[in-house]
Amino acid sequence: MHRTYSLRNSRAPTASQLQSPPPPSSSTKSGRFFGKGSLAHTFRRSTAGIAGPELSKKLAQLVKMEKNVMRSIELVARERRETAKQLSLWGEDGDEDVSDVTDKLGVLIYEIGELEDQFIDKYDQYRVTLKSIRNIEASVQPSRERKQKITDQIAHLKYKEPNSPKIIVLEQELVRAEAESLVAEAQLSNITREKLKASFNYQFDSIREHSEKLALIAGYGKALLELLDDSPVTPGETRPAYDGYDASRQVIIDAENALASWTLDHASVKPTLSIRRAHEEDEDEEEEEEYDERADWEKEDLDLEEIKA
Amino acid sequence: MHRTYSLRNSRAPTASQLQSPPPPSSSTKSGRFFGKGSLAHTFRRSTAGIAGPELSKKLAQLVKMEKNVMRSIELVARERRETAKQLSLWGEDGDEDVSDVTDKLGVLIYEIGELEDQFIDKYDQYRVTLKSIRNIEASVQPSRERKQKITDQIAHLKYKEPNSPKIIVLEQELVRAEAESLVAEAQLSNITREKLKASFNYQFDSIREHSEKLALIAGYGKALLELLDDSPVTPGETRPAYDGYDASRQVIIDAENALASWTLDHASVKPTLSIRRAHEEDEDEEEEEEYDERADWEKEDLDLEEIKA
Repeated sequence: MHRTYSLRNSRAPTASQLQSPPPPSSSTKSGRFFGKGSLAHTFRRSTAGIAGPELSKKLAQLVKMEKNVMRSIELVARERRETAKQLSLWGEDGDEDVSDVTDKLGVLIYEIGELEDQFIDKYDQYRVTLKSIRNIEASVQPSRERKQKITDQIAHLKYKEPNSPKIIVLEQELVRAEAESLVAEAQLSNITREKLKASFNYQFDSIREHSEKLALIAGYGKALLELLDDSPVTPGETRPAYDGYDASRQVIIDAENALASWTLDHASVKPTLSIRRAHEEDEDEEEEEEYDERADWEKEDLDLEEIKA
Repeated sequence: MHRTYSLRNSRAPTASQLQSPPPPSSSTKSGRFFGKGSLAHTFRRSTAGIAGPELSKKLAQLVKMEKNVMRSIELVARERRETAKQLSLWGEDGDEDVSDVTDKLGVLIYEIGELEDQFIDKYDQYRVTLKSIRNIEASVQPSRERKQKITDQIAHLKYKEPNSPKIIVLEQELVRAEAESLVAEAQLSNITREKLKASFNYQFDSIREHSEKLALIAGYGKALLELLDDSPVTPGETRPAYDGYDASRQVIIDAENALASWTLDHASVKPTLSIRRAHEEDEDEEEEEEYDERADWEKEDLDLEEIKA
């Protein structure tokens, strides 16, 4: 991890990298014939937010980049399912135990591909929620610009025609623009926080679910491997008949049940935090009290038409 | 999961799909401009094993398909790191809490990309181990063909020149070829099982490690979100000063420590198996006894030059 604990600074080797040297770099990482990554992805990223308001540009770009991530995970999911089928196809020619175990391994790996597909759908909720921050950013921009424009006009008039009656009209307009702007900035502040929290909760919950389910599948996969008769035979010796069909079927049924019954409450991987926030409970109460106050002015419909980048 | 618990049969909806309807399909899944998946990947898959021996064709193809999977995961990893940087970049313009939290979220998400890269290196061990099965398959093929060829020659001669002295020579040759073939088939049987088990143990261990680490990161990410001041403000109201710098830094340090100290023994996601194999311990003992016997004839160097597909 970044030693400075910020992405805005340069990077140093981490403790764990120093402690345990990583395995050799994968042999697939070099020799790419068709360039790094897809043309469509580069295009999508670099054009994002070009046409939109300045304020929402960076987030518009992030939203597009997340689309790239999703498309790439989709590719992994599809290719994973293909390998699962190929594994099963290969194993079919083998002895009974090899044939049965590879077919069942294929079922598990196919399921990983399916879960990856489901993960994408959940990840999309994160991305869509980010969009609502981008939308409020885009809608606040004109109100900021309007205030600035009126301020400039007043300054200009005061210099050129100090007694112009227009100045009073503009000053009244500025008061209104400032009021509007105050509301807009408060909305921006509130919605950004609310949606940022919601979106990353979606992302982290979906990662949690996905990764715990994958860890489960890996566990069942290892149980399947136990059914392979890997005691070596001597030339001419025949292996005892395979009797693992029931067991392998049961492993898959167990895996299916474990996946079907998994919920976030069942999550078994828990972070260990060294700081616990003492005033967490108080905050929850405050939140409810303030809710009515906020509802009055915030509930205007802020949904903009989707900004086409 | 496949209701028939086999990839070789057709598919029916699963219990969990019937029970809980999935979320709406992600909005990224349609409207692909540049075709489905990469040209390089399709090319690699469809040409795999074309030139190699028939017996190793399917596995050669699987090995190539796994390369596609790895390349795609690499793409995800790279794009993930880019989103992490963009998130931090976007947040920098925000208020102190938004700025700090997004930067730290960026650190965690960047770390996911790094872990994906490490995962690929470990996944490669699985793929490389599959290659040794492909190699023994490729080396057994000629011995099978030779045996078949001699058998055919003898049959042909017995029909055309029943008294030819060549028949005896060929029959002696056949005995030798059969002996060779017996050894080759036993090697194939033993190595296939040994390497199949080893390769999928690599794959499942790497999935376990990767997914548990991701689940950890998601947990720490959720802790970071708690630092966001999401109690709504009214227009004109200013938020209390942000005091979460120490806390957010500590979350990252905790995450780093948790990731650094994770080992397979710490794995917290455990499969629940309804069948326990009673004779597992006996098998372990047998294995050791037979080991010496096997060592004599199996230890020839079976590593072939890598078959270029």
